[in-house]
Amino acid sequence: MRKDDHTTMTQLELAVNGTITSEMETVARTERLEPEFVRGEVALGRLVIPANQNHLQRGLVPAGIGSKTTTKINANLGNSPLSSSLDCEFRKVLFAIELGADTVMDLSTGPRIDEIRCKILDTVKVPVGTVPLYQTVEELNDVLELTPAKFLEVVERQAKQGVDYMTVHCGLLRDMIPLTAPRVTGIVSRGGSLVAKWMQVHQKENPFYTAFDELCEIFRQYDVTWSLGDGLRPGCIADATDDAQLAELKVLGTLVRRAKAHGCQVMVEGPGHVPMDQIPYNVQVEKRWCDEAPFYVLGPLTTDIAPGYDHITSAIGAAIAAQHGAAMLCYVTPSEHLGLPNMDDVRQGVIAYKIAAHAADIARKLPGAADRDLELSKARFDFDWEKQFALSLDPGTARRMRQEALDAAEAAGQRRGTGCGGSVADGDDHFCTMCGPKFCSMRNFRDAIGR
Amino acid sequence: MRKDDHTTMTQLELAVNGTITSEMETVARTERLEPEFVRGEVALGRLVIPANQNHLQRGLVPAGIGSKTTTKINANLGNSPLSSSLDCEFRKVLFAIELGADTVMDLSTGPRIDEIRCKILDTVKVPVGTVPLYQTVEELNDVLELTPAKFLEVVERQAKQGVDYMTVHCGLLRDMIPLTAPRVTGIVSRGGSLVAKWMQVHQKENPFYTAFDELCEIFRQYDVTWSLGDGLRPGCIADATDDAQLAELKVLGTLVRRAKAHGCQVMVEGPGHVPMDQIPYNVQVEKRWCDEAPFYVLGPLTTDIAPGYDHITSAIGAAIAAQHGAAMLCYVTPSEHLGLPNMDDVRQGVIAYKIAAHAADIARKLPGAADRDLELSKARFDFDWEKQFALSLDPGTARRMRQEALDAAEAAGQRRGTGCGGSVADGDDHFCTMCGPKFCSMRNFRDAIGR
Repeated sequence: MRKDDHTTMTQLELAVNGTITSEMETVARTERLEPEFVRGEVALGRLVIPANQNHLQRGLVPAGIGSKTTTKINANLGNSPLSSSLDCEFRKVLFAIELGADTVMDLSTGPRIDEIRCKILDTVKVPVGTVPLYQTVEELNDVLELTPAKFLEVVERQAKQGVDYMTVHCGLLRDMIPLTAPRVTGIVSRGGSLVAKWMQVHQKENPFYTAFDELCEIFRQYDVTWSLGDGLRPGCIADATDDAQLAELKVLGTLVRRAKAHGCQVMVEGPGHVPMDQIPYNVQVEKRWCDEAPFYVLGPLTTDIAPGYDHITSAIGAAIAAQHGAAMLCYVTPSEHLGLPNMDDVRQGVIAYKIAAHAADIARKLPGAADRDLELSKARFDFDWEKQFALSLDPGTARRMRQEALDAAEAAGQRRGTGCGGSVADGDDHFCTMCGPKFCSMRNFRDAIGR
Repeated sequence: MRKDDHTTMTQLELAVNGTITSEMETVARTERLEPEFVRGEVALGRLVIPANQNHLQRGLVPAGIGSKTTTKINANLGNSPLSSSLDCEFRKVLFAIELGADTVMDLSTGPRIDEIRCKILDTVKVPVGTVPLYQTVEELNDVLELTPAKFLEVVERQAKQGVDYMTVHCGLLRDMIPLTAPRVTGIVSRGGSLVAKWMQVHQKENPFYTAFDELCEIFRQYDVTWSLGDGLRPGCIADATDDAQLAELKVLGTLVRRAKAHGCQVMVEGPGHVPMDQIPYNVQVEKRWCDEAPFYVLGPLTTDIAPGYDHITSAIGAAIAAQHGAAMLCYVTPSEHLGLPNMDDVRQGVIAYKIAAHAADIARKLPGAADRDLELSKARFDFDWEKQFALSLDPGTARRMRQEALDAAEAAGQRRGTGCGGSVADGDDHFCTMCGPKFCSMRNFRDAIGR
């Protein structure tokens, strides 16, 4: 049965009614699961298929995000008021998807936001997320001018454009703000800090919390998936898993239930900066309090001392989070805390997160998760370099690095026939520039075992 | 009491006799431990202080490697028969140490091995390790010409030169070779494959195993620390934790006891390529079978599909291994499987492993482990960029990346006074190019909280 026949119902409502949509079938095929199993997981709210009907009509390929599917990764992109052009950000979006990003979030806060978003939604086939508060604030002089009506207008505009999931910081309530006072880095979520400022100055409750039911109605109408923002995520490991973070998470759990009662699909966002040993607890408590709604984490970074390398500090945390049940990992690039990512930062971030997600899927023993590893390892043993490259997460980089090693060996005065340079590239000799023939373990092993 | 008074005894023998050496005192100071505690750990064989007496005399600063001390990282360097010059490798050694490598291994297999090693030992203050089989084979036409006498001669020569620890593949016995037949990538340890070939062709037992007591006598004389090599470590995740690997590890446990009976300090090497979920078991079984001798692991890589990024695939595994009790992490660089590392690969490898070791030390709750994170986070909240850089693992890279972001913003047409470019670098404005003033979470938080 095709979703198109049910345009007034969400994937969640259809799943609860026992309907297997064509989107569920697509997810089942991609994930090697039974369609009925996928329907059941969607019905229970443990799996979401962010697929705005207006993006579906333009060619979105549905993807499933949940704890029973492969771990997904998201790449954040978008301009800032201070830098990066529309074209440049658009090229980064395409590049991130080419490298394997499963979803992208357009976090533009600069000029021409509608234009860049429509161009993205017209072009890309993966789910697209936004933080609608950014555009709202960009269109105002100051966040303090924000009204629920203005915010609802922006959300509906983005929903009509086809945005598949939206982050809204509904769970940060006014009485939580004092909990952040003892923190080392306060509130580091942009949305969280904006709404905190709004609440403090106006002496009013979180407007996204008070307008939650109206927001749900818009989300339901287009089947926009909730991504309940964690405005109080820790911004350094000293602030991890503190009272502020947990108080917000508890409220997010109540909002998960309210969103589902409206028929909306929902995921929950998580930290941030968390020491390795606290990561399993962070995943477990989200599952318990939020009825196993898919957990969408940012990293987390496992140490604060490596600016310039936060794709690595956080890939460690992301892999552990996914191993313990996080459903989607929001990438962090080397430029985190320093500036907007350039093309190479996007590459480093996406590949680091593909690694984290894949390593976790292997550890979770998902069926077939290690097949590609096996094929690449066989190619490695067979000295089949081209096949190794083809099976790599980033074939271009692997091929380039090997060529540079060959060139360096050649430049060091090695000649063809002594096993270096061109002769290796020919694939005739079963060793590489790392070890040379006498020290090649795979060659010596073959000699030993007669294989 | 100074070690110099006991030049005929090893750290282990002195510890067992109740002596606290000046090296133990240095380790206690560095690690914020009590000297008596350090002595006790050395006596139990749970902590080693690789400090060849001939390197000590030339200024070696002793370091402790064990499960109660901070996690150490090692950088492998050295030329190959096919590439890299002596000067170039020497510069990499100095660079790795400057970036924070706690020990270096000279794995040269090319020409002028003695020359490069003596230059390293004369210069560097960190423990230096080798795999003496490499030089032995380099000096022969073929590994098949190897004799125990020749090997002992090379080991003694290196011990006299001042090498602090040596990897020898003593535990790979002849009857284990058939266990490797079903493997996807066979034997990937260079030393392991060489000794396997030697055993198969000569139909004799492992010469390092049969000469183990004689080797111990040389090691004891100079207080060279054993690093019992894992010749059967898995070369892909499909081969992880298999019968071959475990059979060798069991023998290494017996050799740990024999080495200690000779008065030798000893660590045990470990894998390699291991799925995340198997890493804790790998550490636990080593501790059980090897009487908690310090475990020195190579990564492990948690997936095989990312050549060009194996510093990341393995930093994930290394962090988990250290969290569960591995004492030292041998770095893996981006060029692993592709070629010898260049300077930037060395940088990436060392920093990735400093991150893994530090993240694990935080998770292990070592006293003061997170102090630097706290200071950097405070500097971040205070927009004190220079202090952030100074506290970073790689200040130069962090500074450069921020400057590039500022330059990009400037080039995008931003002017001074609108909060971009130079004015940010001046430190006057409390926001950065990522978000700009309106979206700066730390600025908005300060507004909200009145801080």
